[in-house]
Amino acid sequence: MTVNRDACLGLDDQDPLKGFKDEFVLPHGVIYLVGNSLGALPRRTPERVARAVSEEWGRELVGGWNSAGWYAQPLTTGDRLAPLIGAGAGQVVVGNTTSITVFQAVSAALRLRPGRRVIVGDVTNFPTDNYMLEGLVKALGGDYEIRDFAEPLGDDVAVVLLSEVNYRTGARYDVPAVTARVQAAGALMVWDVCHSAGAMQVDVSMADFAIGCTYKYLNGGPGAPAFLYVNPRHQADAENVLSGWYAHAEPFAFEAGFRPADGIRRFTVSTPHVLSFAALEAALDMWERVDMAEVRAKSVALTSLFIDLVEAGTDLELASPRDPERRGSQVCFTHPDGYPVMRALIDRGVHGDFRAPDILRFGFAPLYIGYADVYDAARTLIEVLGKELWRDEKYAQRLAVT
Amino acid sequence: MTVNRDACLGLDDQDPLKGFKDEFVLPHGVIYLVGNSLGALPRRTPERVARAVSEEWGRELVGGWNSAGWYAQPLTTGDRLAPLIGAGAGQVVVGNTTSITVFQAVSAALRLRPGRRVIVGDVTNFPTDNYMLEGLVKALGGDYEIRDFAEPLGDDVAVVLLSEVNYRTGARYDVPAVTARVQAAGALMVWDVCHSAGAMQVDVSMADFAIGCTYKYLNGGPGAPAFLYVNPRHQADAENVLSGWYAHAEPFAFEAGFRPADGIRRFTVSTPHVLSFAALEAALDMWERVDMAEVRAKSVALTSLFIDLVEAGTDLELASPRDPERRGSQVCFTHPDGYPVMRALIDRGVHGDFRAPDILRFGFAPLYIGYADVYDAARTLIEVLGKELWRDEKYAQRLAVT
Repeated sequence: MTVNRDACLGLDDQDPLKGFKDEFVLPHGVIYLVGNSLGALPRRTPERVARAVSEEWGRELVGGWNSAGWYAQPLTTGDRLAPLIGAGAGQVVVGNTTSITVFQAVSAALRLRPGRRVIVGDVTNFPTDNYMLEGLVKALGGDYEIRDFAEPLGDDVAVVLLSEVNYRTGARYDVPAVTARVQAAGALMVWDVCHSAGAMQVDVSMADFAIGCTYKYLNGGPGAPAFLYVNPRHQADAENVLSGWYAHAEPFAFEAGFRPADGIRRFTVSTPHVLSFAALEAALDMWERVDMAEVRAKSVALTSLFIDLVEAGTDLELASPRDPERRGSQVCFTHPDGYPVMRALIDRGVHGDFRAPDILRFGFAPLYIGYADVYDAARTLIEVLGKELWRDEKYAQRLAVT
Repeated sequence: MTVNRDACLGLDDQDPLKGFKDEFVLPHGVIYLVGNSLGALPRRTPERVARAVSEEWGRELVGGWNSAGWYAQPLTTGDRLAPLIGAGAGQVVVGNTTSITVFQAVSAALRLRPGRRVIVGDVTNFPTDNYMLEGLVKALGGDYEIRDFAEPLGDDVAVVLLSEVNYRTGARYDVPAVTARVQAAGALMVWDVCHSAGAMQVDVSMADFAIGCTYKYLNGGPGAPAFLYVNPRHQADAENVLSGWYAHAEPFAFEAGFRPADGIRRFTVSTPHVLSFAALEAALDMWERVDMAEVRAKSVALTSLFIDLVEAGTDLELASPRDPERRGSQVCFTHPDGYPVMRALIDRGVHGDFRAPDILRFGFAPLYIGYADVYDAARTLIEVLGKELWRDEKYAQRLAVT
């Protein structure tokens, strides 16, 4: 071990973000290292959601569309979220799911590059991104081709869709360099920032489009709405093929034909999921007080510490980049029996997750994970492996039914 | 007046649905006739949503995907909703918005009729349905054409999209007759049941696809998830071009390529909006105890009574069908100054809504609107018009800024 627990407690004491842990509800005895999958519950969220249900809906009824601001939610929430991803006001809409926003962004990009018929994905993208590309190509009628980012970028490439941080390994692309290369090839760049938003200073401002979810590091709750960034240089020309009534220039005129709204509103689709928005709004109330540079600095420190501690006590193989600059806020190790290892860890209160075939994945949400948590998690992992506790019959049984 | 208030109180007393009014939270002094736009809050919903937030999310965290049933929500909620629209288990998925489901259903229908290039809409559809058709045609590249249902059904028609009940006037199509005519022409029938589900015995079983929302008569809450019915005869062949990870045969295998799930799951898209689902689930707990034949009988009685009372006391022109068989659960009258008339009504506690240019719209949700409510609403409307209370300067001012 390179540091002891007291040293970690000292780091927690000096942590400029230490006050935020109290803003979350976390189960007793759990070190929750899955905030990269579903972020923890902010303490003020239940009251905010209850208000949306009982006051906005219950008392205002249909009047809530105006009095409670539901009508404007996709845009007002987008404006509040924008600073967290390096965007400005009028550049982000919130709503629907990440998958739907992939379809919107990539189909819009294709229409902005009409002569080009290649969409570049990435075999390491979260699968739904690639699946949505397949569905889009199917919808468009087969003239389009999907290629992998590992292949050369020809002048037939219309759009490239990549995840800033890889969902399995936590590997992070060099966003400015990749964006510049893609755009130099005449293609448009769509960044998926699902695994970076809320964990670092995301900067979408070079991108043509960006998409992401709000239920991981941003703590918007299970199935919280997604977001879509459209660079201002495209807002006059980009088209939203999912052109629902919210995207209309005058939604309440109920005109027979579609006329797109000016600006970012044209990238909304339809009625927002108001109760899910309420939870996201509570999270944003908190995020407005967070310095993202402090979040990133702590994220780098936590992930580096975890790697140091685990490597000092085990012979696990690191599956994440060692260079913190090339890493998101998660650390992965491989183990051939990763599933029962993770079950044994969870049984001891250390919650990570397992990704087939052999990835042990640990996410570090800097607002509610501290240095002593990292120490305790590493020590538990070392104990589970050193004493071969995962060979316990009950974990083997669970493995058999997975 | 054809009946007096005491007679209406007598009808309320004999109403087999009278117990349901207590299952809703309704503001004191309001007769809420906008349940056709946003249904009222069921009394048990706040507790159910609070549980989803604080227990399912707060305590179970990412484990909620299994322990709280989030993973299966689009299908389990679909199965619970199915009986309300005449569908069976494994035929309905819940999620996304009505607009997104229009895109899914119509694009799937087109792929099932590859030689045909015409989509038939209806100028009286809720505009978002038509807007989504426009966006779909744009996405597909212009080979397709949108035609109106008033035109003859040629053998080039692939799919027809109609609303069972018209959102403005409440006019109701003869679903079996229209479906038979469309299918006899070799086209597929997509029914939008947004304005009929929860107000009558909807029967989608003849349809090829059906879509609808759950926040009107079904009381799922603002922005509650939509639903999509796919007739079993199409489930093996129909394709979902919004093919997100939920639609994959093995969502957690994280395979590189898309393989559609068997059955209705292939029409899901991605992560459900869990908190919005919780509110819908609370509403379905109530709906499982409702006899829809009783709902429809009461709906016909309420709307007929309202027409009788208003026509006996005013010279307003009815904009809804007089035949209850051809009418949904709403009644519309036209008035050239409809906006200030409605403002004056709302000021007196009678909440309807106004649809440009001249429609006064009143929806009657049979679970929480009674006969005496109808009497009081009609009397208030008669008073507002008879005493020309809507000419009050404050309403005129509001009209000027609309």
